[in-house]
Amino acid sequence: MRILVLGGDGYLGWPTALHLSKAGHDVGVLDSLVRRHYDDEMGVDTLVPIRQLQRRVATWKEASGLTVVPFIGDLTNHSFVLETLRVFEPDAIVHFAEQRSAPYSMIDREHAVYTQVNNVVGTLNLLYAIKELNDEIHLVKLGTMGEYGSPNIDIEEGFIEITHKGRTDVLPFPKNPPSFYHLSKVHDSHNIMFACRIWGIRSTDLNQGIVYGQQTPETALHPDLATRFFGTVLNRFAVQAAVGYPLTVYGKGGQTRAMLDIRDTLACIELACLNPPDAGEYRVFNQFTEQFSVRDLATWVARVAPVEVTVESIPNPRVEKEEHYYNAVTTKLPSLGLKPHLLTDAHVRELVELAITYKHRVNPEAIRPTVNYRVTRSEVSVAGGAVGE
Amino acid sequence: MRILVLGGDGYLGWPTALHLSKAGHDVGVLDSLVRRHYDDEMGVDTLVPIRQLQRRVATWKEASGLTVVPFIGDLTNHSFVLETLRVFEPDAIVHFAEQRSAPYSMIDREHAVYTQVNNVVGTLNLLYAIKELNDEIHLVKLGTMGEYGSPNIDIEEGFIEITHKGRTDVLPFPKNPPSFYHLSKVHDSHNIMFACRIWGIRSTDLNQGIVYGQQTPETALHPDLATRFFGTVLNRFAVQAAVGYPLTVYGKGGQTRAMLDIRDTLACIELACLNPPDAGEYRVFNQFTEQFSVRDLATWVARVAPVEVTVESIPNPRVEKEEHYYNAVTTKLPSLGLKPHLLTDAHVRELVELAITYKHRVNPEAIRPTVNYRVTRSEVSVAGGAVGE
Repeated sequence: MRILVLGGDGYLGWPTALHLSKAGHDVGVLDSLVRRHYDDEMGVDTLVPIRQLQRRVATWKEASGLTVVPFIGDLTNHSFVLETLRVFEPDAIVHFAEQRSAPYSMIDREHAVYTQVNNVVGTLNLLYAIKELNDEIHLVKLGTMGEYGSPNIDIEEGFIEITHKGRTDVLPFPKNPPSFYHLSKVHDSHNIMFACRIWGIRSTDLNQGIVYGQQTPETALHPDLATRFFGTVLNRFAVQAAVGYPLTVYGKGGQTRAMLDIRDTLACIELACLNPPDAGEYRVFNQFTEQFSVRDLATWVARVAPVEVTVESIPNPRVEKEEHYYNAVTTKLPSLGLKPHLLTDAHVRELVELAITYKHRVNPEAIRPTVNYRVTRSEVSVAGGAVGE
Repeated sequence: MRILVLGGDGYLGWPTALHLSKAGHDVGVLDSLVRRHYDDEMGVDTLVPIRQLQRRVATWKEASGLTVVPFIGDLTNHSFVLETLRVFEPDAIVHFAEQRSAPYSMIDREHAVYTQVNNVVGTLNLLYAIKELNDEIHLVKLGTMGEYGSPNIDIEEGFIEITHKGRTDVLPFPKNPPSFYHLSKVHDSHNIMFACRIWGIRSTDLNQGIVYGQQTPETALHPDLATRFFGTVLNRFAVQAAVGYPLTVYGKGGQTRAMLDIRDTLACIELACLNPPDAGEYRVFNQFTEQFSVRDLATWVARVAPVEVTVESIPNPRVEKEEHYYNAVTTKLPSLGLKPHLLTDAHVRELVELAITYKHRVNPEAIRPTVNYRVTRSEVSVAGGAVGE
């Protein structure tokens, strides 16, 4: 297949592109490189050093003999989107190319507006380009399990059958997301569902859980192929453990979230590409393998880390339930053949060891959360250092 | 109360401002006047002549002795929003100030993107300004019944109790809207609900049905106080009857919609303002009084119009169910005291007679729908004339 990975320079986009390339697909990567700008803006470096996209692509060619074609530009530029699709002629488009951080979207008004406009307009441009150029193209869109919030009922895969006053319908699962970033994904989901319905295009919306891990078989081939180490929950705890900082649990720590290994992300995306929906179909996969509470993850890291670790509850900078029911369904990806990498002591330890290897790059100032969701403007500048998100 | 009406130069915003002024409130109107620009862009005139906002305000002062304060500017300009709120110090803000036409949003990519960015950013700016300046301000936001689509279950007021696999929760009512315009309102609703939750601000989201009628007790005081005649469904049929054009029913005409009289819009908005929600509360009122199918309305107009009328089914330019279950709940506004003006033969006849009075301003070319939802680009230019939407 010809697969174009949007956001192909990012934490997951880059290893996805390599995985698909290795699997025999013709792969292009489109990226505006703005992800690197966010780091500059926050004054942080990546924990694991990463190379420029152009160097990554060249190294992949040397290491594997395979070609990944880069397209540098922004999805909010419609003529660039059209031109790239015209040139590359993809069968499937994997869409990671959005502002991806909840706290970043909550810094202030400017960042909230930027996040929603950037994400919504980029996806609208893509929907129009697909309809205008080739409505057979399968749009594989990265959403998030966060779109659902934490309802007191089981979370189904995108739709739920509701019986109400003696009548029944299958309707979109109600959304109650926890940040302007997550809201941007909810907006996207509604726009994509509508475009499939009126234009007959096809899309898979992957509501992904929180990803942990950093290395994949392909990125391990050469240091220049490394992807960044994105600092959410388990990855963040690994860094805190490495530098001897307490693991910071927000409030009670009973927040339960769906999670998955980075290698399963790549497998899920390939499965979605290989098994496209029908024309006009909008389908949702819940893309995760396990559920953990934040408190349980902190305890786990403390138990198996090769260094002394303490756990600290800090005032919750977010507005969320700290103890709640959480049970999400995921059957569609397993039924397509997903074989999960479940979290093990060995893997938790490896994550901490990886962070220890690079701990000289960490600035402790960048570790504490700096964005308070309860106010409309947070000061986020730090003196520089890794893992600010 | 001090009430600021955003979009106060529009079809409903202007008569709402006058109604609230007459009722004894201190009223400001904010408007970018872009609604007049849309008419210029489409090459259409208003059926009923309307005056410039500044003249309207001056005439209101002469006719009633009451002052309405105009603020000319755009909600997407955050510093203008902040400055207006600082100067006017409203207790409540009534928010009509959005691109308001579904077909306009479906013309092409540029109009879809404009609609969503304009509406979403304007509302985000407002939410931030309220939180930053005075979180007691009650935001009364105009949504639409169209946000819900036409589910096969009864439509509740914003939220629905769902029992699923033995567990129960009250969740946002699932949304399945029929245009990029309606989608912009769904995005707004999610953003507002979130802002209320994290910041403790208060908002009433009025999911309004389709409004008919043009005259209110206040606009009737002087021709310079007239509001525009907005051409959706019943208003459109009145114009078609007036000029001897067949009433154009889209497809089978079984599309059932919630509707209300323009005078009830004004009453509902005042009721919402006078009965604010608690701090942090996001509530939804379904704002309509009756439900009609498009076919029934066409038959009604044909039956009572003072002229010969024919009804014609034309290919549906929209993508929607043409026969479906539809039953929406509305109890909250009646419980606050709403006394509906139900549709009568006399009122239908009056609407046609009004259109006959101004039929010399109508260009028949502007009557047929020109926007086809199934394609990504529609030609909308006409030779000029009234009622192009």
